[in-house]
Amino acid sequence: MAKRIGNSTLLFSSKPTITGFYSVVGKKEWEGPLGKWFDLTIGEGHFGEESWEKAESKLIELSTKGALEMAGVSTDEISLCFGGDLLNQCIATNYTLRTLGIPFLGLYGACSTMAESLIMGAMSVDGGFAKHVLCATSSHFCSAERQFRFPLEYGGQRPQSSQWTVTGSGATVLSQKTNGVHITHACVGKVIDAGIKDLNNMGAAMAPAACDTLCSFFQDTDTTPWNYDLIVTGDLGSIGKDLLRELLFQNGYSAQNLEDCGDLIFSQEQDAHAGGSGCGCSASVLNSYLLKQLNQGKWRKILFMATGALMSPTSSLQGESIPGIAHLVQLEKE
Amino acid sequence: MAKRIGNSTLLFSSKPTITGFYSVVGKKEWEGPLGKWFDLTIGEGHFGEESWEKAESKLIELSTKGALEMAGVSTDEISLCFGGDLLNQCIATNYTLRTLGIPFLGLYGACSTMAESLIMGAMSVDGGFAKHVLCATSSHFCSAERQFRFPLEYGGQRPQSSQWTVTGSGATVLSQKTNGVHITHACVGKVIDAGIKDLNNMGAAMAPAACDTLCSFFQDTDTTPWNYDLIVTGDLGSIGKDLLRELLFQNGYSAQNLEDCGDLIFSQEQDAHAGGSGCGCSASVLNSYLLKQLNQGKWRKILFMATGALMSPTSSLQGESIPGIAHLVQLEKE
Repeated sequence: MAKRIGNSTLLFSSKPTITGFYSVVGKKEWEGPLGKWFDLTIGEGHFGEESWEKAESKLIELSTKGALEMAGVSTDEISLCFGGDLLNQCIATNYTLRTLGIPFLGLYGACSTMAESLIMGAMSVDGGFAKHVLCATSSHFCSAERQFRFPLEYGGQRPQSSQWTVTGSGATVLSQKTNGVHITHACVGKVIDAGIKDLNNMGAAMAPAACDTLCSFFQDTDTTPWNYDLIVTGDLGSIGKDLLRELLFQNGYSAQNLEDCGDLIFSQEQDAHAGGSGCGCSASVLNSYLLKQLNQGKWRKILFMATGALMSPTSSLQGESIPGIAHLVQLEKE
Repeated sequence: MAKRIGNSTLLFSSKPTITGFYSVVGKKEWEGPLGKWFDLTIGEGHFGEESWEKAESKLIELSTKGALEMAGVSTDEISLCFGGDLLNQCIATNYTLRTLGIPFLGLYGACSTMAESLIMGAMSVDGGFAKHVLCATSSHFCSAERQFRFPLEYGGQRPQSSQWTVTGSGATVLSQKTNGVHITHACVGKVIDAGIKDLNNMGAAMAPAACDTLCSFFQDTDTTPWNYDLIVTGDLGSIGKDLLRELLFQNGYSAQNLEDCGDLIFSQEQDAHAGGSGCGCSASVLNSYLLKQLNQGKWRKILFMATGALMSPTSSLQGESIPGIAHLVQLEKE
């Protein structure tokens, strides 16, 4: 059976199923509008670990443990793990994986990692290479701020267009077909650079990539936004979401059913400015709010598209613009 | 047909074929023992680019162009690209990909990236998700030294156990079955941490992971080293290669047919100490010396296993040991 539609869309005809999922977040996320949907909070700061980086590893450790428990599979039964994070050399994920003993394929897709890992996972399950796979990612406000912006102690002022890196992790177990929520299609994004250089406006840098992936997918599948109960982007935030709506409109699509994980996760009162960001943003929202409500039947068919900004502090200091990428998966409740 | 053997081995029954490959290296590599096998050198330093990072992007740009030309396919015909590098947030690869317009799945596997990208590529071709895929990675001595060790201007002394990051890139085009060299099997590695903390002895940190992957593969496939014409590891260097031989011996395997890309790429006189390293090391050696001689019939069946060290400067400063990983592919000339 054909596994591709059009130029960029993958079809998973065996319908890999999400059999386990779990989310862990920090205090601020727990106190936000989606707080009641998350599985666990481990409070503020280091969570008793020696460093922010180790605290972030702890987040992945807890989310993977929770997802495996829900799926009812042991680490021995997981054939492959796909994961990564924002830290240099992806140390949060790598250091957690050394304790799990699962064959591991590391990813770097910035904040698009959750969708990227689901695409890889679905390909390996649908291709017959794995019975169960684990997909996971994380971010931590403190480790990200230090690495990408300023030491927290510096107390830098954040402009209104800036986003707040989510402290959180989400993990998903994908298995060969059973009952539940299936991954039926995916659209792998291209690296799109619209020339944005403002590190405090990531939404603007990523929106063109989100538009490109979404339009490619609509064309390949001959659908429009109205064929889906919800389209939810990764972490464009409020500014990026508005921009994406406008770009889609220019391409002939009206998307009133568009939401964004970064826009959903914090309230106005939480002073997160343009919204949440980080790999953990879309990962924690998918593995709580979205999958729980898909399982409950609130929606039947949604598009989950995580977006990533692919610059580094070095490339920015060298005057480079910020390339973006967006990966999409279609989720369907049977 | 079964796509898995044993615990960790993947079987690509449709035999994805390497239809294009290309290598680009720096001056030192061009002057080394494998110089005559490489396709192109772009001399020393910046190659006319504004920074070492952009020079590294140029390496990938040239290697991917060469591999596509050999395969006789355009970027439009490539369904997926898998790649990554050592730089923070994989900027060398990301910035090249923005010019190619190919759906892209970014990887971080440190120096194991070439094998990792081939595994993902083979899964997607064998699974029917892509007709042609592009796999690529790179490293650059100057960008790596600055990021992982000291600014070059500091003139730090390098101990004899240290390795020299290869300036180079290799790219491979994998296609649905045709004549040529096939990827028939793969073994995905686990993250193994033997507690080594010496950043100047990466070979020792990676050898236990290499041993684990190789032993898993031999057990899964019921083979021994003597079933292969050559076993070539990524960049263990001379010290790591000797350690791997010893570890294999302790596991009941004698591997006299073991070579290492890092050990092959520089001569004693080139003052590279324990040998070459970096994603570009195994990538450039595979996409020149190894694949050219496989095509010429020197070997019929070899194992290519790229090894990676998964630490970061931050994790090392925090006192962490160095986890390793090793991914293996079996290459067969028809």
